[in-house]
Amino acid sequence: MNILDIIAKKRDGKALNKEEIEYFINSYTKSEITDYQAAALIMAIYINGMTDEEIANLTLAMAHSGEILDLSKFGQNVIDKHSTGGVGDKVSIVLLPIIASLGIPVAKMSGRGLGFTGGTADKLESIPGYNTNIDINKFIQNVENIGISMITQTSNLAPADKKIYALRDTISCVESIPLIASSIMSKKIAAGANKIVLDVTVGKGAFMKTKEDAILLSKQMIRIGKLTNRETVCILTNMDEPVGYAVGNSLEIIESIRFLKGDMPEDLKKVVLELGSYMIKLSGKGNDIEENKNKILENIKNGKAYEKFLELVKNQGGDISYIENIEKFKKAKEIIPVYAIEEGYIKQINAQDIGRFACDLGAGRIKKEDEIEKEVGVVLNKKVSDKVKKGDILAYIHSNKNIKEDEYNKFLNIFKICKEKPNIQDVIIDVIY
Amino acid sequence: MNILDIIAKKRDGKALNKEEIEYFINSYTKSEITDYQAAALIMAIYINGMTDEEIANLTLAMAHSGEILDLSKFGQNVIDKHSTGGVGDKVSIVLLPIIASLGIPVAKMSGRGLGFTGGTADKLESIPGYNTNIDINKFIQNVENIGISMITQTSNLAPADKKIYALRDTISCVESIPLIASSIMSKKIAAGANKIVLDVTVGKGAFMKTKEDAILLSKQMIRIGKLTNRETVCILTNMDEPVGYAVGNSLEIIESIRFLKGDMPEDLKKVVLELGSYMIKLSGKGNDIEENKNKILENIKNGKAYEKFLELVKNQGGDISYIENIEKFKKAKEIIPVYAIEEGYIKQINAQDIGRFACDLGAGRIKKEDEIEKEVGVVLNKKVSDKVKKGDILAYIHSNKNIKEDEYNKFLNIFKICKEKPNIQDVIIDVIY
Repeated sequence: MNILDIIAKKRDGKALNKEEIEYFINSYTKSEITDYQAAALIMAIYINGMTDEEIANLTLAMAHSGEILDLSKFGQNVIDKHSTGGVGDKVSIVLLPIIASLGIPVAKMSGRGLGFTGGTADKLESIPGYNTNIDINKFIQNVENIGISMITQTSNLAPADKKIYALRDTISCVESIPLIASSIMSKKIAAGANKIVLDVTVGKGAFMKTKEDAILLSKQMIRIGKLTNRETVCILTNMDEPVGYAVGNSLEIIESIRFLKGDMPEDLKKVVLELGSYMIKLSGKGNDIEENKNKILENIKNGKAYEKFLELVKNQGGDISYIENIEKFKKAKEIIPVYAIEEGYIKQINAQDIGRFACDLGAGRIKKEDEIEKEVGVVLNKKVSDKVKKGDILAYIHSNKNIKEDEYNKFLNIFKICKEKPNIQDVIIDVIY
Repeated sequence: MNILDIIAKKRDGKALNKEEIEYFINSYTKSEITDYQAAALIMAIYINGMTDEEIANLTLAMAHSGEILDLSKFGQNVIDKHSTGGVGDKVSIVLLPIIASLGIPVAKMSGRGLGFTGGTADKLESIPGYNTNIDINKFIQNVENIGISMITQTSNLAPADKKIYALRDTISCVESIPLIASSIMSKKIAAGANKIVLDVTVGKGAFMKTKEDAILLSKQMIRIGKLTNRETVCILTNMDEPVGYAVGNSLEIIESIRFLKGDMPEDLKKVVLELGSYMIKLSGKGNDIEENKNKILENIKNGKAYEKFLELVKNQGGDISYIENIEKFKKAKEIIPVYAIEEGYIKQINAQDIGRFACDLGAGRIKKEDEIEKEVGVVLNKKVSDKVKKGDILAYIHSNKNIKEDEYNKFLNIFKICKEKPNIQDVIIDVIY
């Protein structure tokens, strides 16, 4: 087999077979194919597309380019959850302890933040002592012992996907449904899942800006799931404004703790209930979605979800005194209230703008090597469709540096206020399976 | 300006403007853009094409990526000639001394051979002492002194084209009309031409396998010529069988010497007359094509063309005693006659197969670094449509190594013989301007 023939075939719009795709992925992982050859092939894929069979083969080849986690000791319904990214997204942090408290094993690997979106692993690490870098054996042992472990991704999980993702970023080939879909699904398969619930975010703070694109991506991932024998459900959720109120690492942990104690922001609650009830369904523990929602609410009410979270944190080396007393979390040097200068209804709080602002404060990374400041970020005081009067506090900026007037005004301008109460998009846009 | 935006624009099928093309070419020449970014852009160009304006801008940007030869002291009609490549192609070697003998200045840079096609510079170097590596000042001085100089390309001529050509070869992006056309035209413009006659070869031994593709390429180059103010004529010539009889470096020089002395193979003669008469026309020395052909024939007959060739060789340091006595050329260790084993008419002598066979004997290079053996190659004894009897000699293999039976048979099989006299394609297929 020859990479030149493979490139020429895709260049001419023909479908690659399984062997050709595997040859490309394996050779590229071993650097036997150059970056420029991979770049040419990926551009040809971007422009000419791929059939479902090609996309499924690409997904499996990338998944098998490194180690595949063997979670078979947890049965045939090992379930994983993934989000396509957003701002203020603490869904995994609250949802997974709930799921574990219902007796469903949770072996979760999460990413780190980059750009305006945060990462679950970074957020968990803002709990002093919490270790996200434990080895795979210990990870599986944790799940066996307490039913849950949440860590960061190991470096050898789908290395081909990592390499291709980094390349796509430098050659304007990011926004391709086949490539996005296979990237996500390959990581889930490598992480050992055989049932997958995907939170496909849509809107200003999401990768998919329109419902149409989100549906295309969802349907593509579901087709990959079918062809690779991994049952997949996609929940389309709104990401025009941040989820919940807090954006920033320890700020989101604090909001998560409150959530698990019953103080649930409405939008976050809806996302958690929807995703959770499908996770329960796929795991074989309950077919009725509404009933599943009640199970979740009950385990929040009776404290079992919170207890499971405490157990998780303790088991990962975290200091649970912080969970038990959230006042212990280090605070930013300045907490600056931001006041409304007009009256009306909040029409828009652009999630990407909030994410970028928090990132600039130090809550996120511009480059992979950047250090993050756990305590900084933004806490909203109002959400879209809330009524505000002049002088009402819209949000608090948690910052370790001085906020200059122009920065303050830039932040204030993120809040769009209108006279009429706006029609708001329900946070759950669609469920596709 | 940003390469990511430029890649995305071409990826989406939009036209790049002059500044964007210049940014790409200049930055890539300076290696400020990576090979993988260039590969992605070139694949997008290959698939989505380019407008005439884009192609002209690409041509000029590549031409200006290095030094531009200033031949303006030779007037406003500095003419260059180029062939898209073939087997046994000694047209430049015979034609250019003829042109110079007619008082038209010839400042010619030629390439080296790679793969199954030979290179004029290699062929000239098989004349002992002939120096193709002289500096530009000396080159121009030679043209001033004797009206002709023929050398190899300087390394700083259209370096962007060299870099892109090498990249295209490794990413299956060679066969693109816009890229081939701009590559050829950029080199001609960098070499100082303002009038261009192109020998666009068509057939089994050519880059363009069909007349349709050759016409597309020709029309593209003529449009580039119009947009860049370089009058261009394309002569489509047949390259199903080798041109003339000899294939191999010194073997072709010997055939060229004989040609200039009046021993002219019919097909080579037609190509030389057609290309030459258009060169005369474009140089402003005669508008009538048939009359121009007569001028050429006359300067062969009266010895002026041969004298000019002798002068050229002497001026470049070559030993003219070899020209005056072709028996002095070193011979291959073995000269093996190949006999017809059936009777009939020669239907096909695949030029590419002959070129590959000669290359394998050592007449050509597989890799750029390979040394070539000047004296080896193939001399045909029959051409397509010739009648043969069993036992007639079809060709001679000139080899420094033993020819095994399977190699002999492989060579014999290149000659396809049929019972009926075949209709043959005229060597001049079309003239486009």
